[in-house]
Parts: sequence; structure tokens; C-alpha cells
Amino acid sequence: MDIEQFRKEGYKAIDAICDYYAGLEQRPVVAQVEPGYLAKLVPDEAPVKGEPFPAIAADFQRLILPGITSWQHPSFFAYFPSNATFEGMLADLYASSVTNPGFNWACSPACTELESVVMDWAAKLLGLGEAFWVQGGRGGGVIQTSASDSALVAIVAARSAYLRAHPDVSTSDLVIYGTTQTHSLGAKAALILGLNFRALDVHPTFQYGLRGSTLQKAIGEDREAGKHPFVLIATLGTTSTGAIDCMSEIGPIVRDSGIWMHVDAAWAGVALSCPEFRDKSYLKDINEFADSFCTNFHKWGLTNFDLSAMWVRDRTQLTDALDVTPAFLRTKQSDAGVVIDYRNWQLSLGRKFRSIKLWFVLRSYGIEGLQAHIRKSIGLATLFADSVQESCLFELCTPQSFALAVFRLYPQGIASMLKQDELNSLNRALFHKIAARSDITITQTDLLGTFCLRFAVGAQRTEERHIRKAWEIISATAVETWAEWQGAQSVPIENGTA
Amino acid sequence: MDIEQFRKEGYKAIDAICDYYAGLEQRPVVAQVEPGYLAKLVPDEAPVKGEPFPAIAADFQRLILPGITSWQHPSFFAYFPSNATFEGMLADLYASSVTNPGFNWACSPACTELESVVMDWAAKLLGLGEAFWVQGGRGGGVIQTSASDSALVAIVAARSAYLRAHPDVSTSDLVIYGTTQTHSLGAKAALILGLNFRALDVHPTFQYGLRGSTLQKAIGEDREAGKHPFVLIATLGTTSTGAIDCMSEIGPIVRDSGIWMHVDAAWAGVALSCPEFRDKSYLKDINEFADSFCTNFHKWGLTNFDLSAMWVRDRTQLTDALDVTPAFLRTKQSDAGVVIDYRNWQLSLGRKFRSIKLWFVLRSYGIEGLQAHIRKSIGLATLFADSVQESCLFELCTPQSFALAVFRLYPQGIASMLKQDELNSLNRALFHKIAARSDITITQTDLLGTFCLRFAVGAQRTEERHIRKAWEIISATAVETWAEWQGAQSVPIENGTA
Repeated sequence: MDIEQFRKEGYKAIDAICDYYAGLEQRPVVAQVEPGYLAKLVPDEAPVKGEPFPAIAADFQRLILPGITSWQHPSFFAYFPSNATFEGMLADLYASSVTNPGFNWACSPACTELESVVMDWAAKLLGLGEAFWVQGGRGGGVIQTSASDSALVAIVAARSAYLRAHPDVSTSDLVIYGTTQTHSLGAKAALILGLNFRALDVHPTFQYGLRGSTLQKAIGEDREAGKHPFVLIATLGTTSTGAIDCMSEIGPIVRDSGIWMHVDAAWAGVALSCPEFRDKSYLKDINEFADSFCTNFHKWGLTNFDLSAMWVRDRTQLTDALDVTPAFLRTKQSDAGVVIDYRNWQLSLGRKFRSIKLWFVLRSYGIEGLQAHIRKSIGLATLFADSVQESCLFELCTPQSFALAVFRLYPQGIASMLKQDELNSLNRALFHKIAARSDITITQTDLLGTFCLRFAVGAQRTEERHIRKAWEIISATAVETWAEWQGAQSVPIENGTA
Repeated sequence: MDIEQFRKEGYKAIDAICDYYAGLEQRPVVAQVEPGYLAKLVPDEAPVKGEPFPAIAADFQRLILPGITSWQHPSFFAYFPSNATFEGMLADLYASSVTNPGFNWACSPACTELESVVMDWAAKLLGLGEAFWVQGGRGGGVIQTSASDSALVAIVAARSAYLRAHPDVSTSDLVIYGTTQTHSLGAKAALILGLNFRALDVHPTFQYGLRGSTLQKAIGEDREAGKHPFVLIATLGTTSTGAIDCMSEIGPIVRDSGIWMHVDAAWAGVALSCPEFRDKSYLKDINEFADSFCTNFHKWGLTNFDLSAMWVRDRTQLTDALDVTPAFLRTKQSDAGVVIDYRNWQLSLGRKFRSIKLWFVLRSYGIEGLQAHIRKSIGLATLFADSVQESCLFELCTPQSFALAVFRLYPQGIASMLKQDELNSLNRALFHKIAARSDITITQTDLLGTFCLRFAVGAQRTEERHIRKAWEIISATAVETWAEWQGAQSVPIENGTA
């Protein structure tokens, strides 16, 4: 493809994306395809001769789009949001036009320098203190692929620091702490690294957040047993329910125990951009006690996947753990120590030019634009949560957290007579009915044995009318499910109404 | 930004990229900026109010482009190539328009299904046997971020399999094998996983490739000492010199020893698309003995970063090692076992829609187009290597490997009288002179104590004239360096001539 053909095909791609977004609300939210649909429609092998590009681009529309679930659809309430913005798309386009592997400053100085600049911007936006800024001289931010990567890097750095301080400790005695509500990234990191993971108990009475007393007790037990807890993954906004570990209690304990605290705020962290959410998010304690902190701007932060922002208080902890410099990677600037080589802050060598996305987004929206997006999402989630609470057919399983509501079908006056198993199968039936629809999508979770439904707001185009429509669908489906369930049980119980 | 503004700014971005490529050859190859240049030119904090997008896009030209080293420049001969094509850029644009985190089939079925399809296409293109195809039922391909990730995943899977088979083995007795020429990804994986890495010796007599006898001896020694070698990173095309480990010898040994063989063909693997390079690359032995294989289409394979293609012979080895499925990630299709959830084939949870890049590239260029690109690069490297060999001022440090020539200043008749240290400082001086230029770029390496220069061909726009110009520059700079060096030594030795 030559330059003029690229111009033509580029314009066409832009137009096609405009068409997709103009028609987004009329599309199904969830892809309506069956497993194996694509292999039946495409050849078994790459073509020997090149094909004309217009045919290839047309196949994106014909073959790929039907298999895409539209995470930007205003009625997407599943998982957590995965925001994509036009600004982010254009940034990705500019970035891929100057592709380079970015492992050293020298690969393309702009990539490294912009990353340091925007990660400082983002730290300030969220209220992270100077300790976490590149400008501060000791800490700094780095863009990882995902919150899993960020946690893995933090754990590797923590392990390295711990074993330097305690050279006689066997790795088989090391323990990673999380809670039963920590994202699976904790257990997966342990699996990858071959380390033990202990899921500490949390309770509904503190809304599934970790308490200091639980942590203190676990440390005592483990040390008594010759184990060495060395890192805690504390969560600000768990995936299941948006729970927040009590960092004011656990912070002093990890500090006194020499345990690294990694704060996984993958989803909720961007809400720190709004001052009114900082107290409940323990920002003060994060600034005092966290060794590392992660939030994914590619979730709720208006930035296209992937942009996992990770900060550390002491960047030498990363380089001490991860720096391997063979001759072919040495450069004048690195040898002089005047630049950052981000390869030593991450697992991989190569890395994309991702900072440009965050730069474009933060400049285009401004701090106020991002705040408005967060506040709007939370306001809309409140609208939904209020409907749940006012209904005699439902209950919130936990209080609304940020823009997430976790709820279940719980017919007033009757539900308390049902066993947990019965309530779970009732709610599973409701979930399967909703999951079979193409016009809205939500997800489920298991909350220490209780089957719950999750309603997460955060797509950029979601408005009040989408919430109202979702509520109508969910409550009508619940009425239907409940009626069917009663029929199946042959128990003459009167319907609750939404 | 609304849809119509996106259309306008999208067209402008496409035009700007056209301008960049139209003027590429007139640009410096290497960014001419000093460490810290950018922070001085941008504000300290994100703006409170959003800025107009045209100003932001203009800053890409004004602030970012000067700090970009142009890896697509026809005179870029450093590291290995990092190809970017217009087809890849458009694929990235389409992909980011339908952003989703891709961890499950259900996130957007097209992403998973296209990945399986194109990884089978790519396997067939390279001559990898059915054992490595998704279609084959047991093996399959997955797109990782980088060759480091691919190796890390392979090692984790190998460790998991080994420990299942030998449950009493302590991880502190496990050993990862590579050679002194293995990419630093081997040592870094060991650092990350807290495992031992043993770099086996290789010798110039076999062009720095690993021999079976060396491996056999090491296994004997290590087992004798109670150690457990469990994985070997074999390389097809090392970074320093393009060396190839002798897989016909090591293959049977690893098989008989129960050691997992991961073939790191990050750079050279795409050359397997040309049948004439398959024998020297031990394709037959890879098909017979390799447990996993990796090549980066984002290097020499016309596909924009990132696209590290990894195949395994037994996909259950990945899922057995990496599957962690909490309730919120369960889906109907996954529970039924009818789909692939690629999150269980990699370290992270989230993943980009990258297969579309490879699909667009393989269809646009066709098999013949990719082969032509590989053959052209190798032909151009041969032109350079021949000039080196014909010159009385230089020598090739190792035979040319694919599109890589490793050479040094080695004035005929005189060099043999110089000590290694002297030759190294002479070549360092030459390298620093070339590195100070903005019109070509090459890199250096250390070959068991010998300082060498690397000349890697592979940018899509490189033509014969660029090779001839590079040779002129390098040979003229060598004459100058040699003259200065002689002057500094005050030894009256006559100049060699290029």
C-alpha cells in the first residue's frame, strides 16, 4: 500500500468508525454469534498473493463486527467499563505510525519522556503525593499492560527487596496476602511465581473490606508457623462488589511488619480524580503507606485499552529486581544514568508507545472532563441502586460502591423463608434470562456463596434513559422469573412487584 | 469530541501520517534531542479545562516527532527491525475503535476466533506442523506482547509440568538452560521467577550455536549435583550474531531428558516463510522436538508492535499452569469447554485485539509478499556483508546470518598484531563516531569479549542505494578512526583502505 492508497483507505476507516458509532445504540450490545462462527467463514490458510485492501476492510464489517460485543454501547453494564474515546483512537493511530519497541530511552526519547510527564500528571490528578512522582526523584509511574502485570511487577519487586533483607528465607516460606475478595490476579501471580497466596477473611459487616485486626492476626499466625508474609495486595474497589480494604488500619501494620503494600485500584482508582471520593478511598493512607499503586485508565478512565498506570514509591526497587542489561542494550544515556529505561520497570523488554493516549485524553477532557465522567457514572449507578432499594422484589447485596451496584432478586417477606440454595437458583435463572438478551448486558458474581448480579455503569454514552430502560428490563424479567419459579415449586406465594 | 469532529481530526491524522512517510528519508534517523527535552516544553500538570483537539494534534508534530527515532527509515540498521506498515496501522485503528479487554471468548468472540484462525495461518506459513495448530486439537497459537512474555509463559508452563511430574523437587533446584548468547529474556525470566539460569557455553567454531555435547554434559553435571534442568531456551537467530542452536542435536537430548524446549526465534522465525531457509533453521527438528516456539511478527514480519506469536504443542500445559477462574469470569461458553479463553494462555487477564493486524498484513501482502520482504532484506544484508569481506579494513566477526552482519574494524596485516583490548577500543571509537550521526544508525555487541558492530537490515523501505550509502559512511568513518587511532598511538603504521 503506497501513501496515497493509505490516505484513501485511512479516510474510509475513519468513515467506517463514524458509521459504527452513529449506529451504536441500534446495534446489539452482545455479539450474537456461536462458538466457531468465524472459522467457517474464512479460508484455512493465508493467501499466496496479496488481496486488494478494500476487500479486507470490507471483511472487518462483514465478518468481525458481528462478533464484537460493544463495550461502548450505552446499555453495557457488564464487568467493568472498558472506555474507548475518539481521542484515544487517534492517539493509538499516531502511536502506531511511529512504531518502535520502546525498551530504552534511546529507542525514541519522546516515548519515555512523555510517559514520565503524563504519569506525573496522572499522579497529581489522583492526589498521589510527590513520593510517587518521577519529578520527586525517588518514585515514579510506569504504564503496564494490565493490572495483573502491575501486581506481578509489584510482587516481584517486593520479593526481591524482602529476600535482600532476609537472605536466609526460603521462597517456599514466602506468602502473598490478599483477601477472599482480591481479584484473581493475586492468585494468578502466586501461580506464576510459584509462591503461596493466603486469602484473608473479610466480612459483610465491614462490606467485605480487610480490617487491621484480621491482618494482624494472620501475620502472627504465619510468623509463628515460620512463614514470611512479604506483600499485601490491598484493594480499592474489588471486582465483585467494589469493596475497599481499610487502609487506615492495615497501613500502619504493613509498615511496622516490613510488608510491601500494593494497592490495586484497577477500576475505582480513577475516581480519586474527584476530591469528594478521596476520604472513603483512604487516599491519605495510600499516600502514607502504599509502596505501589495501580489504576487502569483503560477501564473507567476514558482511555482505550491498554493503559494500566502503576506508581512506586521507590523506583530502585523495580530496577533492583528487574534490570538485566546485556551489551546490545547499553546506551550512552543509560550508562550515564540520566534517563529512565522503562524496560527495567516491567517484565517484558519491548513496550508500546501508550503514554500518548493518556496525554491526548487528559488534555482533551481536562481534569474537569474526567471528573464529570466519573460523577455522571456514579450518579447513574445511584439511580439504579435507588430503584433496587425501593423495589420490594430486590435487595442490594452490598451498599452501592462508586458506579457499581450488586443486587439480587429477593422478594420481600418471602425471600427470608427461602434457603440460600433456592435464592441462588432463582437468581441464576434471572441472570440467564438477562444474559440471553442482546439489548443490555450485566454480569454475575458469587459473594461468599451468595449468587449476585452486578450492574456496573461507566460507558461514556450511557444516559439516564438507558438506566431506566435497563431497570424496566431487569425488573420485568425478575417478575417473570419469580412467577415461573413459584409455578415450578407449586407453592402458592403471591408475586412481589417491582 | 463528537462523531463529525472525529471524522475531521481523523482525516487530519491520516494526512499527517502521509506527510511523515513522504518526508521520511529527509528526516534524521535518530532523534536529535537531549535527555529531559520534553519536560521543559510541557506543563507540569494536566489542564483543568479541556483543550481544543487541533492544538493537541499539532503538539504531536511539534513536541513528539522530534523525539522519535524513525525505525521505518530506510537507513535504520540498529537492533532488529521493528516493521510498521500502513496495513498494520489501519488494523490498529479498527481494533481500537472496538476496544475491549478480550480476556474471555465472550468479551468479543471475533477477537478470540480471529486469533485462532490467523495463528493457524501463520503456523502454516512458517511450516510449523499440525501439532501446533488450534485446528489440530491439542496445540495452538496465542499472541503475546513480546518474546520475553512468550518465554516467561513457556517457562511457567514447563515448571508447572515438571513439578507435577516430580512433586518432591524443590524449586530452588530447578534450572533454566540457555546459552551465553541467549537473549537477556532468559536471565530476566529467571530473575522474575526466582529460578536459576545456567548459560551454557557456545563456541565460535560452531558460530555460537549450542551443540548437543555441551547440553548433554551440562545435564549430567547438574543432575549429579542434585539440580533439575527443566527447560531449555533454544534460539533461532540470537540477538548478538543471529546464531542458531543445533536443534538436530539438542532436540533428541531434551526429549529423552524430559526437558521442555522453547524455541526463541523472535527475529529470525519469520524467515521460515521462505522454504529455502528452513533446513538451516532446523524446522524439521523444531516440528519434532520443540514444546513451544515464538517469533515476533512485530520485528521483521511487517506487523506493527506488538505481535509476538507463540505456539505450543499441548495447550493444556498452558491452561494447567495459568487457569484461575473466579465466579465473575465464568461464562456459559467457557463452562461448556467449547471456546478458548486466551487469558489462560498468558500472564495477564486483559488483552488487546491484535490478531487483526496479522490478518490484515497476511492478506494484503500474501505469502509471496512476506517472502519477498524477507528475501530482499537478506539480499541487501549480503550486499553489505560482501563489502565488509572485500575490504581490507574490516572483518566479519561471524558469518552473515539472515539479514544481520556482525563486523569490526580489523585492518588487514596489522590487526593481528593488536591486543584484543586495543581492537576493542578502536572499534568503540568507530562505533561512537557512527552513533553520533543522525543519518544512519547501527548498534554494537560484545561477543565473548570482542566488541563488534551490528548491521541489521529489515526496514520495508530500505533499498540498495541505502546500503551503499551506509557502507560509504561506515568505511569512511573507519578510515578516519583508524588514522586518528594510529596518530594517538604515535605508531607509524600505514593506513588500510576500504
